[in-house]
Parts: sequence; C-alpha cells; structure tokens
Amino acid sequence: MTGGTAPGGPDAASGGPDTSGPDTSAVAPDTSPGRHGTAPRRRGRPPRAESAATRDRILDAAREEFSERGYDKTSVRGIAKSAGVDSALVHHYFGTKEQVFEAAVEVAFAPVLKGREAVLDAPLEEVGERMTRMILGLWENPVTRIPLLAIIRSAVNNETAAGVFRRLVAGQLLRRIAGQLDLPDAELRAELAAAQLVGIAMIRYVIKVEPLASADIEQIVKRVAPVVQGHLTGR
Amino acid sequence: MTGGTAPGGPDAASGGPDTSGPDTSAVAPDTSPGRHGTAPRRRGRPPRAESAATRDRILDAAREEFSERGYDKTSVRGIAKSAGVDSALVHHYFGTKEQVFEAAVEVAFAPVLKGREAVLDAPLEEVGERMTRMILGLWENPVTRIPLLAIIRSAVNNETAAGVFRRLVAGQLLRRIAGQLDLPDAELRAELAAAQLVGIAMIRYVIKVEPLASADIEQIVKRVAPVVQGHLTGR
Repeated sequence: MTGGTAPGGPDAASGGPDTSGPDTSAVAPDTSPGRHGTAPRRRGRPPRAESAATRDRILDAAREEFSERGYDKTSVRGIAKSAGVDSALVHHYFGTKEQVFEAAVEVAFAPVLKGREAVLDAPLEEVGERMTRMILGLWENPVTRIPLLAIIRSAVNNETAAGVFRRLVAGQLLRRIAGQLDLPDAELRAELAAAQLVGIAMIRYVIKVEPLASADIEQIVKRVAPVVQGHLTGR
Repeated sequence: MTGGTAPGGPDAASGGPDTSGPDTSAVAPDTSPGRHGTAPRRRGRPPRAESAATRDRILDAAREEFSERGYDKTSVRGIAKSAGVDSALVHHYFGTKEQVFEAAVEVAFAPVLKGREAVLDAPLEEVGERMTRMILGLWENPVTRIPLLAIIRSAVNNETAAGVFRRLVAGQLLRRIAGQLDLPDAELRAELAAAQLVGIAMIRYVIKVEPLASADIEQIVKRVAPVVQGHLTGR
C-alpha cells in the first residue's frame, strides 16, 4: 500500500517533487547548446527549492553530527562546516543548536510516525507484533538507524535532548498507542513494552553485545512480540 | 543470611577489617598525653592504609565525573582536581584514563557481582524475580545508581566504555546466568531478559519518562519479573 492516493497524507511531506514523469526536457543538461533558436530560459531550480535543498543538506549534516558525537559535543559550527555552509545560515534557518536538533530529529522521526499508523490500525491482538516489527525495522535500516542513534546518544547525556525524546517518543508514539488500549494503566503498559524494545536496541545496535547483536531478526521478533503484546493487553 | 560463616566468600573483600572487637586501646585518641612513661609510638595510619584512602578518593571522584560527563568528556586532570590530588598521582595509581574508568567501574560493579550470587543460588523458577529485583534494586539506590549511570552514559557514546560494558555485564553477569539455564540458546535468553531491564532503566532512571519514572517499584516488579522469567526459562 505504498504511494496510496490519500491527499496530504503522511507521505506528502517526505516525498518531494515527483521527477519520474515523462518530462523529457529534464534529461537535457543545462550546459547543452541551445536547440532551434527558441531555447527555454535556463531551467535551474527556483530559489525556494534551492533553499529547501540547503535546509535538507544542513539537516542531513546535523543528524550525522548528532548521531556520531551526541548533543553536547556537536556544534552549529561543525554542522555548518559539514554541510558546506556558513554558521549564520544554519542559525538563519533553524535558530539555536537545540532548535537544529529538534528539526533534525523531527524529520528523522517521520518514519516512526508513519509506522505508528500501521500499529494503530492493527487489530488489538496484533499490536504487539506490529510495534515490535516497526521499531526493530527502523533500527535494522541504516538510513533510519543513524537518527535513532543520535536521539539515544544525546538523550542519555543531555537534558535538552532527553526532553525531545520524551516529547516525541512518549508523547507522539507511546501515548497514542496507549490511547488504543482502553485500560486504566495503558500508558505504563505502553512504556514497559517500549522498554523491552529500547533495551534490545541498546544491547543489539548501540553497545553490540553478542549473541543478540548478530541474532536473526525473525528469531528476535518471535521471542519479543509476545512479550510486547503481553505488556500492552495481557491479563 | 547476611554475615554468614563461609570463609573467603564474596563478602570477604568488601567488609574491611573487623573493628567491632573488644580492642579498647583503640578508644584512646592519638593526641592524649602519654600515660605512665612507656607511651606507644604514635598510632597513625600506616602508609598503606593512607594510600588506599587516596585511591578510594580518586575512584569516588572518577565515578562522579564519568557518571556526570560520560567517558569522552571526563579527563584525568578533572578527576585529579575533584579528588584534590595531582594528575600524576592518578596516573601512578591507575595508568591511563581507560584504566581509571575500568577500575572505577569494577569497584562499582562489586554489588552486581554480589547480587549475581543471589540470582545464581535461586531455584530456576525464581530466577526471573531475583534478577529483576537485583537490577532494579541497584538502580533504586542512589549510591549504586551513580556508577550505573556512568556505565550507561559512557558505553552509549564511546567504544572503549562499550567494551567495558560488554566484558562486565555480558561476560560476568549474563553469561553466568545463562550457564545455569542449560538450554542451547541460553545466552540469547539472558540478553533478552537483560534488555527488558536495561530498557526500564533507560526510561525510568536515565530519560525519566512518566508514568514509568514515578511508578511504584513493586508494581513494576509484578509486571516485569514474569517477562524476565519467561525469557530465561519459557517454552
């Protein structure tokens, strides 16, 4: 069900402009000699797209820096250098280091919010497996693993980053899942379920303890999904 | 069963010399005027005890620094300053920063190794609850929580510290518990059980997400001990 037709859905923001259409003119590079006199104006990116590309480049650099160094040791200057722009531009687009972090994490958090919908749509007896597959899937994929590492590394060492974790993971993900449970201690249940998955992420992907670090992912899902389900809906 | 009679048991190293005996001479302070001519030589601490006290002070300072700042941002100079000694003395006693870290963590890890014996002594059907109470008990106690925070904060951000975590937590604790299980995938079971507890530590004590951060500890044990037991011995 990828690329559905729901307008303005969660995919809309992350997809970017569709360049797969039959617009053959885009194939000709800007530097080709003009054909048949009436050459169109140079088809460069309009300024808005250009600034969006710069923003994306800064956010990519920010995620990279935060995930490698953690919040405290990352500087706006370092992010700017890695993105090939001036520090002033980073401040212009995002503001303080905290705001750069929030923006970088929020973009990185988009797949989690998308995955959340699949969890919320599941029948109650499948929510444990869906949640397990969603979270472990994000950690298995190197593209989404980097920002998750940034969140964990930073949240463990810095109160600002811990606040972002609480707001995003607890506020946007766990509280929503708890809302489906219709039980008085639903939030505690959701957090104990999350604790199982956070702990696996720590041991498998962050600290890399064997044999869990190399275990087959299906073997882990088989053992862990019933535990997550039990926390959420058991007894 | 505290203070048992087993000679050289795990308590022997941590107890220190027994000062509760009827050695009344110890009551007289050093500064009292000499009695009846043949006053004994000044009963100051021998140099060995003094150097042990300095070592302890350095290790206390090291644990404090590592837990607050993490491995990367802690310096031998900062530890020395906080302990009120010269950096050279820290190097003299312990060597490199990595070796200071290992020594500080190893001392802090002593209660875990003591708790491990209680887990290993338990009947197999109680090992889940014993392990849960042991780990959460260490996190509940501020004295043992500080070095655990140091280990987590450092291991998440630094490969050297992650290696210490793997050697101590996985090597000394989980592998020993796995050894009791007599099952082919015992180590994976022990790590999945540990993952549940590590995740709770992260959410409750490190990132402090509510309601788990303030939940009653017995409520947590009631929900988590069966999960830990299930990982260890289930199916």
